[in-house]
Amino acid sequence: MIIVLKPNATPPEVDHVIDRIKELGLKAHVSQGEHRTIIGVIGDETKLSKEPLLAIAGVEQVLPIMKPFKLASREFNKKDSVVVVGGRVKVGGGHLGMIAGPCAIEGREILNEIAGEVKKAGANLLRGGAFKPRTSPYTFQGMGEEGLKILREVGDAHDMPVVTEVMDPRQVPLVEKWADMLQIGARNMQNFDLLKEVGQTRKAILLKRGMSATVKDLLMSAEYILSEGNQSVVLCERGVRSFEDSTRNMLDMSAVPNVKGMSHLPIIVDPSHATGRRDLIPPMALASVAAGADGVHIEVHSCPEKALSDGPQALLPPNYGKLMEQIRKVAEVMGKTF
Amino acid sequence: MIIVLKPNATPPEVDHVIDRIKELGLKAHVSQGEHRTIIGVIGDETKLSKEPLLAIAGVEQVLPIMKPFKLASREFNKKDSVVVVGGRVKVGGGHLGMIAGPCAIEGREILNEIAGEVKKAGANLLRGGAFKPRTSPYTFQGMGEEGLKILREVGDAHDMPVVTEVMDPRQVPLVEKWADMLQIGARNMQNFDLLKEVGQTRKAILLKRGMSATVKDLLMSAEYILSEGNQSVVLCERGVRSFEDSTRNMLDMSAVPNVKGMSHLPIIVDPSHATGRRDLIPPMALASVAAGADGVHIEVHSCPEKALSDGPQALLPPNYGKLMEQIRKVAEVMGKTF
Amino acid sequence: MIIVLKPNATPPEVDHVIDRIKELGLKAHVSQGEHRTIIGVIGDETKLSKEPLLAIAGVEQVLPIMKPFKLASREFNKKDSVVVVGGRVKVGGGHLGMIAGPCAIEGREILNEIAGEVKKAGANLLRGGAFKPRTSPYTFQGMGEEGLKILREVGDAHDMPVVTEVMDPRQVPLVEKWADMLQIGARNMQNFDLLKEVGQTRKAILLKRGMSATVKDLLMSAEYILSEGNQSVVLCERGVRSFEDSTRNMLDMSAVPNVKGMSHLPIIVDPSHATGRRDLIPPMALASVAAGADGVHIEVHSCPEKALSDGPQALLPPNYGKLMEQIRKVAEVMGKTF
Amino acid sequence: MIIVLKPNATPPEVDHVIDRIKELGLKAHVSQGEHRTIIGVIGDETKLSKEPLLAIAGVEQVLPIMKPFKLASREFNKKDSVVVVGGRVKVGGGHLGMIAGPCAIEGREILNEIAGEVKKAGANLLRGGAFKPRTSPYTFQGMGEEGLKILREVGDAHDMPVVTEVMDPRQVPLVEKWADMLQIGARNMQNFDLLKEVGQTRKAILLKRGMSATVKDLLMSAEYILSEGNQSVVLCERGVRSFEDSTRNMLDMSAVPNVKGMSHLPIIVDPSHATGRRDLIPPMALASVAAGADGVHIEVHSCPEKALSDGPQALLPPNYGKLMEQIRKVAEVMGKTF
Repeated sequence: MIIVLKPNATPPEVDHVIDRIKELGLKAHVSQGEHRTIIGVIGDETKLSKEPLLAIAGVEQVLPIMKPFKLASREFNKKDSVVVVGGRVKVGGGHLGMIAGPCAIEGREILNEIAGEVKKAGANLLRGGAFKPRTSPYTFQGMGEEGLKILREVGDAHDMPVVTEVMDPRQVPLVEKWADMLQIGARNMQNFDLLKEVGQTRKAILLKRGMSATVKDLLMSAEYILSEGNQSVVLCERGVRSFEDSTRNMLDMSAVPNVKGMSHLPIIVDPSHATGRRDLIPPMALASVAAGADGVHIEVHSCPEKALSDGPQALLPPNYGKLMEQIRKVAEVMGKTF
Repeated sequence: MIIVLKPNATPPEVDHVIDRIKELGLKAHVSQGEHRTIIGVIGDETKLSKEPLLAIAGVEQVLPIMKPFKLASREFNKKDSVVVVGGRVKVGGGHLGMIAGPCAIEGREILNEIAGEVKKAGANLLRGGAFKPRTSPYTFQGMGEEGLKILREVGDAHDMPVVTEVMDPRQVPLVEKWADMLQIGARNMQNFDLLKEVGQTRKAILLKRGMSATVKDLLMSAEYILSEGNQSVVLCERGVRSFEDSTRNMLDMSAVPNVKGMSHLPIIVDPSHATGRRDLIPPMALASVAAGADGVHIEVHSCPEKALSDGPQALLPPNYGKLMEQIRKVAEVMGKTF
Repeated sequence: MIIVLKPNATPPEVDHVIDRIKELGLKAHVSQGEHRTIIGVIGDETKLSKEPLLAIAGVEQVLPIMKPFKLASREFNKKDSVVVVGGRVKVGGGHLGMIAGPCAIEGREILNEIAGEVKKAGANLLRGGAFKPRTSPYTFQGMGEEGLKILREVGDAHDMPVVTEVMDPRQVPLVEKWADMLQIGARNMQNFDLLKEVGQTRKAILLKRGMSATVKDLLMSAEYILSEGNQSVVLCERGVRSFEDSTRNMLDMSAVPNVKGMSHLPIIVDPSHATGRRDLIPPMALASVAAGADGVHIEVHSCPEKALSDGPQALLPPNYGKLMEQIRKVAEVMGKTF
Repeated sequence: MIIVLKPNATPPEVDHVIDRIKELGLKAHVSQGEHRTIIGVIGDETKLSKEPLLAIAGVEQVLPIMKPFKLASREFNKKDSVVVVGGRVKVGGGHLGMIAGPCAIEGREILNEIAGEVKKAGANLLRGGAFKPRTSPYTFQGMGEEGLKILREVGDAHDMPVVTEVMDPRQVPLVEKWADMLQIGARNMQNFDLLKEVGQTRKAILLKRGMSATVKDLLMSAEYILSEGNQSVVLCERGVRSFEDSTRNMLDMSAVPNVKGMSHLPIIVDPSHATGRRDLIPPMALASVAAGADGVHIEVHSCPEKALSDGPQALLPPNYGKLMEQIRKVAEVMGKTF
């Protein structure tokens, strides 16, 4: 950590900062520049939290040098992690997790139809929401436990491990019972009690990036899960809020290689939620694989106009099939398989 | 709701949209323009959710006319709501809620000292965090129930109702027992299960705007609480994420009159979290009152450099006192009291 | 255009709006809904500018239905435009414009060396800045005319048409004399006098998206050039400002298919400026081609650490060569050539 | 400047960085930490530009310590600057510049009427646009020189110095001839040739913040003007682009005290362009003065619905008058006059 003092910091102020550093068992390394005094702190940086230092008179800037996450960091694990979902589907390290399915579980028959189609096209993980985070209290909130059972049955019938969202720490035992991969939605990326709760399960976790979370924030949230002992975390870029008004969110494609530089965790992309537009899903899915993503999460619905949630961002099964053929070719160029 | 069709929409596509509208017991009003066909939907707009329509072939845009929130809307209640905290302190309708205290409760003695100082300066509500949402799992997470008891005692000793954050639906009964006003933090603004849970209490709720929430999103989250039967909601602008890197967040001051145009609910401003900089708190607090806010939420700590959380954004008690004198003058110009 | 009146609009207010519409030779189509009166305007929408209507008492919203650009629109030209640079290199319609070169022209020898390398790797257009827009008045501002001459000579020597930025309407005749393609930088995307000036040349224009421009804003700026009679416009996505602090800008990859849906103009991507990080250029370049871009603009420098401008976002020639091999494979999957 | 090396930087890489520093006549101060080597650079930091260092192998971060602007900085001038417009109206140092007038000059009669009204209400500077930066090439582009003459005459008739926008370096001599204060619009904040050109006049400059400019970017642009010898620069906060869709831009109110901490230059606020909504202008104008702004820029039009530009964000003269009475009271609390 580096502490930059104000140009007019007094010697007692400088001494006071040095004393605080020494109190913590750290060493202070003082550089007297032309315009500023700079203090380098040597030792375990975590002993100093950034903020109280800034509150000391005479301090202008505090620049942390170390990244605030550890278990999620590339330094901690130089090799790409591979997360295994449902004991058989690998995500990461050259294996693409191709997640597909409707936004919400609406019934056994329709889910079964969609699952059959996406499986045939090459999807290896089935998604469907039983608990839906909706901005309005007046819209469909999901089928709950009944939906989870349907998802399990349909997944088993098609030999696909299943992914579903969990929104409330109290639901974790229930969702854990029925699903292979627990999704933490964007709105809950910093719901820290929920992160701790899923960190105590041994299920794979799909952690979506919050709508205004930096890449570092996302990795800090992954750290919450990892630090509880659950190492099976897959990150998901799903777009962030921006001023652009012709797409629902802005897909931050560079987050894919950016995360891979900082962390060993797999990262997939969800072009459905990122763009909110069916026409943009295929090009963004192809781009994701070319950018190095470890998978793609796509909403597929056989009758989007009757979907109870998010119809306009779902592909029809035949379009999904066509897209998967192209994805296969790009994946081959990138040396990846699914 | 208005449905705009694509320039090349076919007559069967147009008819299909009209059929969907009629199925729902609504009337369709078709305008044939030069370049586009436009369909106005007449009747209860909530029967149509925006999205599935967009998924119909031939539909280009779906423009909702009604606001998606009801109980929070200005139409629902033309008069400004007044929220009463702890049976005695009014917020809204000309009454300013002056919330002050440390970020986190760190001990009885220090909280008591700060409470005495802020009360003397004119604060009417005491804040302090017992459960802290921290981006890092490795930093101080709050004193928990022990902190809540201290907050209660110190609040009672100074005759100040107390405000504290609740982060987990499972904590609601506990926090409800000790506090007069329950704060929902920015990171939990769309934690819908938590919103429903606090909506079932009869405590005042301080709902903070999410870091990338629009003003409408904020009002939709308030609607979740109101629709559970709890009418005592105070909103709080606390800054949103932006590209500006010299402040922690960007305080959206216009949210104050913007909310007041759309809703009857009181709204206060938190310049501490919005700016993250002690030097910017006083001018932003004064501006908030001039902009029409119903109160100001300020962190005050007698030793910011030893604060266990967020020291740099806390004022020292004497600076808070000086600021409150100025606020009183601006409040007088605005015809408000505290 | 659709005009939505306020719930409490009076009959005289409604009549006043209708009168304004009729004055302009347009027809008003009134729908009386349950909560709102809505007026559809039929006829040439450009006669009504959006804003004055909003200023009329009783008007709540004005919703334009038509896009505000014409010549740039997909409706105007259903086929993809192909822009020919320097009489020989095609961009668009299956042809990739592979622009490469140093940020700034620094001298004949070094430019010649870089040009040789990028040409060998497959680049078909040579870039280099002679006039540099720098945020600080104290940094290198470019070699000016001398630089333009060098660029021309080196381009000719390697049979590559040349691209360079023009910043000031007074420089247009000079830059036009030496270059094949004139670049309008992000900071000048809404420098309307400059747009008009380059619109009067018959050189190809590379129009970069402004740092906070929406896709529509970008197309409106293209419209300025097209409406002056210059049809050779290539758009360029180069990242927008965001809260993410680990990349210089946020590359909005979805702008590529988004633009292609709305416009017939070619669009390329500049991952160098978008990310500001050398390690992110290769994955973002591959993703751009997979997303359907008509080319990629990459900074290449043989000694980035001595570059007078933007060294950290330049690739070394060998890395560029390696990247181009991979791009070729992805281009093949997409059915494109260069 | 501080240079942080990567954890795995080799000794030759470290030596190479040190050599580069010494070559420039600067001193390197090396701190060997537990995880990282850090090099402090002592001497004139401007000799090292940030970017090439980052391009050196082994370098992880380059942290500039000094602000990149000099003449604009608070260090350069500890006292608040006072800019005098038209030889008589002071802005800064306790004097509020109250700029009012229509968006565009539309004719002598209407301008004269508006000028009379705003003067009576207390405005001390008259604004009106003769050259209009419009996003569409098909909308009203301003009256040009004819408009400038009208503005001059009307300003003189009411004894108000006049403010108008200049968009093109070629227009500077013309605009300089007729106006007292030259406005640089948000879209031209980084039109560096234009900045240099107005920097060579001796007129007061009103420099508006770009829609995605940081406060530092704004001060860097001011530096361009100051470094040409023109010291009369007034900054203007006018909102930035954000995800909030109910206001045109987001007014960054904290920019006012933020700029005042970093710079001696006066800063005013333009709530008309910042919000784009007439109902939000009065509360934002009051808040601006309470936040410490040196003036307010408000559009006033006597018939907004017939305004040729930006009608919805203009106040009617009587509303302006009423607002000015309230502003006077808040100004008094703040110890300022106009």
